[in-house]
Amino acid sequence: MSHEDILVETGDRIATITLNRPDKLNAWTPAMEREVREAMEAADCDDAVRVIVLTGAGRGFCAGADMAVLNTIRTEAGDRAPRPLGTRPFDVSVPPDYQTRYSYFPAVSKPVIGAINGPAAGLGMVMALYCDIRIAGADAVFSTAFSKRGLIAEHGISWMLPRLIGLAAALDLLLSSRKVGAEEALRLGLVNRVVPQAELMTEVRAYAADLAQNVSPRSMAVMKRQVYAAQFETLAEAVAVGNREMAESFRSEDFREGVAHFVEKRQANFTGR
Amino acid sequence: MSHEDILVETGDRIATITLNRPDKLNAWTPAMEREVREAMEAADCDDAVRVIVLTGAGRGFCAGADMAVLNTIRTEAGDRAPRPLGTRPFDVSVPPDYQTRYSYFPAVSKPVIGAINGPAAGLGMVMALYCDIRIAGADAVFSTAFSKRGLIAEHGISWMLPRLIGLAAALDLLLSSRKVGAEEALRLGLVNRVVPQAELMTEVRAYAADLAQNVSPRSMAVMKRQVYAAQFETLAEAVAVGNREMAESFRSEDFREGVAHFVEKRQANFTGR
Amino acid sequence: MSHEDILVETGDRIATITLNRPDKLNAWTPAMEREVREAMEAADCDDAVRVIVLTGAGRGFCAGADMAVLNTIRTEAGDRAPRPLGTRPFDVSVPPDYQTRYSYFPAVSKPVIGAINGPAAGLGMVMALYCDIRIAGADAVFSTAFSKRGLIAEHGISWMLPRLIGLAAALDLLLSSRKVGAEEALRLGLVNRVVPQAELMTEVRAYAADLAQNVSPRSMAVMKRQVYAAQFETLAEAVAVGNREMAESFRSEDFREGVAHFVEKRQANFTGR
Repeated sequence: MSHEDILVETGDRIATITLNRPDKLNAWTPAMEREVREAMEAADCDDAVRVIVLTGAGRGFCAGADMAVLNTIRTEAGDRAPRPLGTRPFDVSVPPDYQTRYSYFPAVSKPVIGAINGPAAGLGMVMALYCDIRIAGADAVFSTAFSKRGLIAEHGISWMLPRLIGLAAALDLLLSSRKVGAEEALRLGLVNRVVPQAELMTEVRAYAADLAQNVSPRSMAVMKRQVYAAQFETLAEAVAVGNREMAESFRSEDFREGVAHFVEKRQANFTGR
Repeated sequence: MSHEDILVETGDRIATITLNRPDKLNAWTPAMEREVREAMEAADCDDAVRVIVLTGAGRGFCAGADMAVLNTIRTEAGDRAPRPLGTRPFDVSVPPDYQTRYSYFPAVSKPVIGAINGPAAGLGMVMALYCDIRIAGADAVFSTAFSKRGLIAEHGISWMLPRLIGLAAALDLLLSSRKVGAEEALRLGLVNRVVPQAELMTEVRAYAADLAQNVSPRSMAVMKRQVYAAQFETLAEAVAVGNREMAESFRSEDFREGVAHFVEKRQANFTGR
Repeated sequence: MSHEDILVETGDRIATITLNRPDKLNAWTPAMEREVREAMEAADCDDAVRVIVLTGAGRGFCAGADMAVLNTIRTEAGDRAPRPLGTRPFDVSVPPDYQTRYSYFPAVSKPVIGAINGPAAGLGMVMALYCDIRIAGADAVFSTAFSKRGLIAEHGISWMLPRLIGLAAALDLLLSSRKVGAEEALRLGLVNRVVPQAELMTEVRAYAADLAQNVSPRSMAVMKRQVYAAQFETLAEAVAVGNREMAESFRSEDFREGVAHFVEKRQANFTGR
């Protein structure tokens, strides 16, 4: 499949989606929006894929909405109801919260790793935050940017950012629009890890390969849903969901393999069933 | 306006409210309570003010309820319903959570920056936590203090502290009443930044001045509400609020200026409209 | 009382519960489950005890469910309704969330300090997370382990872990099952403190002794409930609970002592009444 504003590469059970307008720091366009969604959905349905990586071509991750197309975006400011993602057969259902125009990465049943290679601003920062895990190169820079444009906390960042870095840090970043470099991002909990810039993709692929080879894809899919769903559950509800899912998992191939490879002291060979 | 227990100074778009009983480490009194509320409300309504700073005179930030007036406070332990704050014309409404006797700083539509210059204990720590952002001098010390007085988690700190620093750190600080210095406060996320003691007010004013000059006051007011309101919203609700506010912002002067100053590569000149 | 799989030692107002299958890294058994619950309940009811410490014998904290008894556990995967804990006479009630098979430490009215002396894996990590405060020796290692066994996020960890360390770090640890050492655990907020391995129990006992001697047991019990209950309350509700509890505390012996020892500049002598 050929794309206008992204690249997609699949291999070693990893799908890598690259925002690909490097001369514009990968500023977000309607085409990019459509293509990222299609690529995420395709990777989610592809049995050869276990982990998804999202990154940017060139020096930037994503500079936010392209100023040249801002007028277009203005006329469709509302939330288009996208086709629901995440209909794979697990008991934990996906809340509607993860089915909006931009907040759908949590509905993808496979881990989405953000490889933050440079500036992530405005909408580009929002997309980074919807990745499950963020690994940053030393050149990563985050800025919310909205307050410098006379804009507001868009697309759920008012909800998501405090849950990642706490209320006070979220207010600081949203009100000031100040730039946060990789080391501060790590301290704030905005990224999971910082690696030397030149080794970013090597490190991300090593992490992704570990997930792809050594843990159960079934476990990952169920747990990803459990964690995001638990944001809207009481602990008692989360325990009940866990008990139900635990009983299901005992009947799975992956549980048998999970015990077998441990007892036999060999590498795991999970099927995801 | 002359005050008994506080000082108020306004200039360069910044209102500075100083708790002013330095010989008592600014221990909290009924007069101070009334005056801080009045000063916050006045600053919120004053178009010449864009940012509010709260600090303490002398060596302390606020040592908590004045022991000499503790009997008074005891007799009015209930929550007086204060006049609602924050009725400025934005779509995001202020939940009743931010309209109680002490929890109203989030209802102020302008950023409230705590300049933590020394000990903040008991009620003094509660007030510090209701600031949007905390910048600490190296001499800042936090202690919940309640368990050493046979008291309990007062005025919403049981709710607020875990949302700022996580469940386990909140339990440690509340149960033990131990003193937390500036560096540990930074590590825990209790403050946003630590600066050398002698430079505290210079650094706070520089941060406040950046907010006052370079970002949209309208954006700050809307986003502050979005973030605090989102504590009681699902992600889907927060996205809906954001979409509504985004559409509104496109019609604002500040959005036009936000794009114009960027395109023209010049300093912003926001009006807040 | 003699136990099969644990040791209990009480002295200096501290009850220490030690998981005691050192040759199995204290892997969890049905007997251990029953005995820990009984010991927690006994300590909660014992007026001579003010603080509870949970640790492991030998090199491990708890390696998770014993593989040899995994079949047994499978057949009782559901949640047995245990006798409710935490019926001591305080106003803040214990939500049902803290009354499930494994999530009941928050219902114990006394602080539960986890002394994490080595590997805490799977169910062993879950139990560690339900402690109020975690102090780790340098040899502590955490791993969720579920995804390596084809299992899922068990017993409420999908709810609890993000509230302790944030969404993104929780996803990293759950999806990858990677091992997290003591220093990283501290950075993530997974533990409150790290101490040299040889000094672990000395440091834990010093912290516990401080709670046992210098703060009000009544305050601790009320505040522990307030904090856990506030996870399911609005801020306005938490303020209302606090106001009610504050009024109660003014009538307590511990409040009188809390003021008296401060005014008299002497060590406190709290009774818990």
